[in-house]
Amino acid sequence: MPKPDRFSGVLSPVVTPFQADLAPDPVRFVAQCRWLLSQGVGLAVFGTNSEANSMSVDEKIMLLDSLVAGGIDPARLMPGTGCCALTDTVRLSAHAVKLGCAGTLMLPPFYYKGVSDDGLFRSYAEVIDRVGSADLRIYLYHIPPVAQVGISLDLIDRLVQRYPGTVVGIKDSSGDWDNTQAMLQRGWDDFRIFVGSETLLLRNMRGGGAGCISATANVNPAAIRALYDEWQTEQADQLQKELVELRSLVQAYPMIPALKAIVARFSGDANWRIVRPPLTELSEGQDTSLAEELAAVGFSMPGLS
Amino acid sequence: MPKPDRFSGVLSPVVTPFQADLAPDPVRFVAQCRWLLSQGVGLAVFGTNSEANSMSVDEKIMLLDSLVAGGIDPARLMPGTGCCALTDTVRLSAHAVKLGCAGTLMLPPFYYKGVSDDGLFRSYAEVIDRVGSADLRIYLYHIPPVAQVGISLDLIDRLVQRYPGTVVGIKDSSGDWDNTQAMLQRGWDDFRIFVGSETLLLRNMRGGGAGCISATANVNPAAIRALYDEWQTEQADQLQKELVELRSLVQAYPMIPALKAIVARFSGDANWRIVRPPLTELSEGQDTSLAEELAAVGFSMPGLS
Repeated sequence: MPKPDRFSGVLSPVVTPFQADLAPDPVRFVAQCRWLLSQGVGLAVFGTNSEANSMSVDEKIMLLDSLVAGGIDPARLMPGTGCCALTDTVRLSAHAVKLGCAGTLMLPPFYYKGVSDDGLFRSYAEVIDRVGSADLRIYLYHIPPVAQVGISLDLIDRLVQRYPGTVVGIKDSSGDWDNTQAMLQRGWDDFRIFVGSETLLLRNMRGGGAGCISATANVNPAAIRALYDEWQTEQADQLQKELVELRSLVQAYPMIPALKAIVARFSGDANWRIVRPPLTELSEGQDTSLAEELAAVGFSMPGLS
Repeated sequence: MPKPDRFSGVLSPVVTPFQADLAPDPVRFVAQCRWLLSQGVGLAVFGTNSEANSMSVDEKIMLLDSLVAGGIDPARLMPGTGCCALTDTVRLSAHAVKLGCAGTLMLPPFYYKGVSDDGLFRSYAEVIDRVGSADLRIYLYHIPPVAQVGISLDLIDRLVQRYPGTVVGIKDSSGDWDNTQAMLQRGWDDFRIFVGSETLLLRNMRGGGAGCISATANVNPAAIRALYDEWQTEQADQLQKELVELRSLVQAYPMIPALKAIVARFSGDANWRIVRPPLTELSEGQDTSLAEELAAVGFSMPGLS
């Protein structure tokens, strides 16, 4: 089997469709992933915007199996596999590798706060050793506003030195460009640095980054991908400006329910609005005003069904 | 089957023994729980100090089954069952009820931050409805320094009104006496309020509270229980002062590895030191100085084997 390629480009942390009883819906999930691939973005399923941590490992394994059985190319899959429990992370990561997923996006264990880099290093090391596969590719997931447990530059240094063929990239969702820039300047060999929002995509590409993994790639994938493709052209700054404007419009609302409301509206499937607690759906008023604002800027989701 | 009584008194968030390969060890766990019961404290297994969130639901179910099979009275068990994922919380809580556990200590889902009381209410409501048992007794777990997601007084109000026979108490690990006092003053009917540290036990009892669930009840259970028994006597303030002194000594070290180091030393079983990542064991120097400080105050753990 050939070694999995390292990711670059734009990936979507795919929102997860639930049924009325809050069970995840594999049929709509496969369809949504197909549409996202048709828009030119990869599939960072089970991210923060996927409500991944609101699902059990069994539910995530079921969904991942459904994607592969449904013909989704595992070379485009970077599932989130980092859980609080070492054994959960190992089980889900090993399953992703077995299915041929080209990468995993791995949160650090996030229940205990103020833990040491030694403890986090040991956590990733145990996962790598226990999965025990040369095909495992880990993209670290740095999202301090949510996880509260971050990934320091020193920790990355140690992991890349010890596991150079396994720890191959990071998603930086700190929103702190100084942090992304500091990572870019370290010059780790072929280390893929993704920003967590398309608002920083052009800066990241100009600094030598690999792309972005962004919430709004659920609803605006083709335009984000276009900037990735054209970042070295004259229109790049204009494309970036347009992406920032649409992002600002969406993120004035709670992000996950807003993304789902948009998918619901443009697919005509109201069940897309459903979120698992502790999240709540947009209010009717929010839903309407978001739709009006999107209509005013001519937003659409071509080909979504 | 008689309705489970509501808890009061002192409970220990029991530290979890791991083997060299980091697997949880049911044999040592049963023995430790027996010793704790012999010291007069109840068993809040799978708490923060138990590294509960570092274990999978399957591992916790195995340990809980082992306790009951090992003869531990489920009327003394208040397992922590709150996970990030709704389905995990439901599964573990339902299992605890099936085994006859007299209560569950339930964290809110803690991955997403800044969630609304509506979302948290819906989360607890879904768990209660899905477990669907008149024997479920929930003690809410408010520990903002770790979970970051807290439980407001308004949320408690709503839960107690909607589920008066199910939501029957809280562990307040905020460390903020004003918060505990505000809860005590609400006067919810027979609502059991536990502080998260014995340093506040006397104040809590004087204010009408139910007791404490405290990390250090793993190593100093009998003395904490003694204050609970004697809080209305003349020596109560002196007993409280002694508890505060011992607690201060221990919490100068990282709490969970310190508790395990103490159990290891007094049981003569070095494997008790093992923690799961992301935690790390005490250094040799810390271990030695902690032991010296405990020896200097004449600390012992009678009957521990």
